[in-house]
Amino acid sequence: MDIIRIPGEMRETAENLRRAGLRLGLVPTMGYFHEGHLSLIRRARAECDRVVVSVFVNPTQFGPGEDLGLYPRDFDRDCELAAAEGVDLLFAPAADDVYPPGYATYVDVERLTEGLCGASRPGHFRGVATVVAKLFNLCRPAVAYFGQKDYQQAQVIKRMAADLDFGLQVEVLPIVREPDGLAMSSRNQYLSVDERRQATCLYRALGRAAELFASGETGAERLAAEMRAVVEAEPAARLDYAAVVDANELTPRRRAAPGAVAVVAAFINDTRLIDNTILGTDDLKAGATAC
Amino acid sequence: MDIIRIPGEMRETAENLRRAGLRLGLVPTMGYFHEGHLSLIRRARAECDRVVVSVFVNPTQFGPGEDLGLYPRDFDRDCELAAAEGVDLLFAPAADDVYPPGYATYVDVERLTEGLCGASRPGHFRGVATVVAKLFNLCRPAVAYFGQKDYQQAQVIKRMAADLDFGLQVEVLPIVREPDGLAMSSRNQYLSVDERRQATCLYRALGRAAELFASGETGAERLAAEMRAVVEAEPAARLDYAAVVDANELTPRRRAAPGAVAVVAAFINDTRLIDNTILGTDDLKAGATAC
Repeated sequence: MDIIRIPGEMRETAENLRRAGLRLGLVPTMGYFHEGHLSLIRRARAECDRVVVSVFVNPTQFGPGEDLGLYPRDFDRDCELAAAEGVDLLFAPAADDVYPPGYATYVDVERLTEGLCGASRPGHFRGVATVVAKLFNLCRPAVAYFGQKDYQQAQVIKRMAADLDFGLQVEVLPIVREPDGLAMSSRNQYLSVDERRQATCLYRALGRAAELFASGETGAERLAAEMRAVVEAEPAARLDYAAVVDANELTPRRRAAPGAVAVVAAFINDTRLIDNTILGTDDLKAGATAC
Repeated sequence: MDIIRIPGEMRETAENLRRAGLRLGLVPTMGYFHEGHLSLIRRARAECDRVVVSVFVNPTQFGPGEDLGLYPRDFDRDCELAAAEGVDLLFAPAADDVYPPGYATYVDVERLTEGLCGASRPGHFRGVATVVAKLFNLCRPAVAYFGQKDYQQAQVIKRMAADLDFGLQVEVLPIVREPDGLAMSSRNQYLSVDERRQATCLYRALGRAAELFASGETGAERLAAEMRAVVEAEPAARLDYAAVVDANELTPRRRAAPGAVAVVAAFINDTRLIDNTILGTDDLKAGATAC
C-alpha cells in the first residue's frame, strides 16, 4: 500500500491508473477506522480494480465550538487496517495542502442541507461538500463509498455529484452496529462507560419507531414523539432532533410510508451522536448482526 | 464539427478523446461570437488536439432585472464561425439539461467576488463558477480559455480551478477591441448609433488612467477620479465603478504599481459595459490594433 501526502501526487497517480483502464474506488474518511469504514473498504475492494482511501480530518466541516481538536486520530493503526484490507493507496494530505493560503472556494448544496444536522451545525455540509468535491477531482473515482449512518451527508454528496456532473457513482452502505445496537462511530470513543450504556437510546428510539410503524402507526408526529421519549428517558441524553423525513429530499413527512427515514440526533453529555433507519426495512436488525 | 446537445454525450465524447491521449481545449461562451471569442478559439486550436466550444446562455449568472431574455443569440452563425475556425465539438445544452428539476448545488468563490461586478450583480459569479465547474467536469479539458475583458471572472475561475483541484490550466487572453477602442462584447449589440459613439468613454477613461500612470501618477484615487470624469462627461453614461485594484486579489490599491489593473464599469443608458487595462503594459494599444 502506498501512502500519498501531496494532492498533486494523488492526482497524477490516479490519472495514470485511469489511463491504464483501471476502475478506481474511493472511500473518503476522517480516519480512526471502525467496522463501518472497513465495510466500505471491503465493498470497494470487491468492486474496483484499485482502492483509494482518504484519511483527512477536514477542518472546514467543524464549527467553532466543535470537536476538531479532539477528534480521535490513530494514523498508524489506520494504515495497518487499510493494508490488511488490500487498500492500494492511502491519501492523507496535510490541512495546509488541502486549503492553502488564499483558499476561497466552497460548494453549497441548498435545500437538503437546511434541516436536521444542517440546522444544528451551520456550515458543516458546506465543508463536507467542498472537501468531497476536491477529493473527487483529485482521484476521479468510478465509485465513491459512504456510510448510511451519515444519511443526510450521503444524500448531499449524491446530489452534489449529480448536480456538478462528476460522472461517478455514489454508493451508500448499511450502518454497522455494535452488538447492543449502537451505530459505529469514531465519536463513540468519547463516551465514558456510563455514557456508552445510555448512548444506545438512539438505537432503541429508532427500534421503537420501526416497531410502531410495523404495527400500523404512520403518524410522523407520533413516531417522533415516541423516539423523543426514549432518548429523553436517559439522564445524560439531550435530544437534538427526532423526525421522519423523505428519503431523498429529507423534508418532514406527515405520514410515514415504507422507504421514509426515521432520523435521530442527540447529545450524550458533550458527545453528539446520530443514527437512522429506513422504515419498512429490517436494517436495524441487519446492522446489529453484521458485526 | 459535431454539435452535442446532451451533457452525458459531451462527457462520454470528451472521455473517449482523453483516453485516446488527446489534449482538449475548452472555450466556454454564451455564444453570439465576436472577434474576442474567435481569438480564444484560435489559441485553443493552435495549442490543443481537440477544441470544444460551449455555447450556453447560463441563466444562473443573470440577476432578476437583468438581460437574460434579451441576450443576443444566433446559433446558426455561431456554428458557421466555429466550423470555419476548425472547432471539433460545439456543446450547446438546453437549460433544463444543465439545471434539471431538483438542482441544488452552487460553487461560491469568496473574497474575489465581493467587489466590482460582484457588488453590482449579486449572485452573478456564483452562477459563473457553478456553470464553469460543471463544464470542467463534463469536458475535463487540459486548458480552458477566457477573455481578459471579464477580468474579475477570469480571476474567479482561476481561483476556483485551483481551489477545487480541477488540475487544468486557465489561460486568459487579451481584450479584442473595435478600431475606436471599444472592447468587443456581445452586449455592444444593444447600443444605438449614438450610444455606440458614447460607449468609447470606457476605453477613453482607461486610456486617460494609463497615460497618467505612465507620466508618474500613482495615486489610485486620482486615477479613479480621472476615469470617472471621462465616463461622466457622456450624457448617456452612468458610472458603476472605476478603480485600480490588485491583479490577483482585486482589492483596491492606494498606490498603483505596474501590473495593477484599472477597471471600469458603466451603463450606457440600459446597457452595462465593462473594460480594463493592466497598468504598465500597452494592452490598450495592442487590443485596439488586433482587430
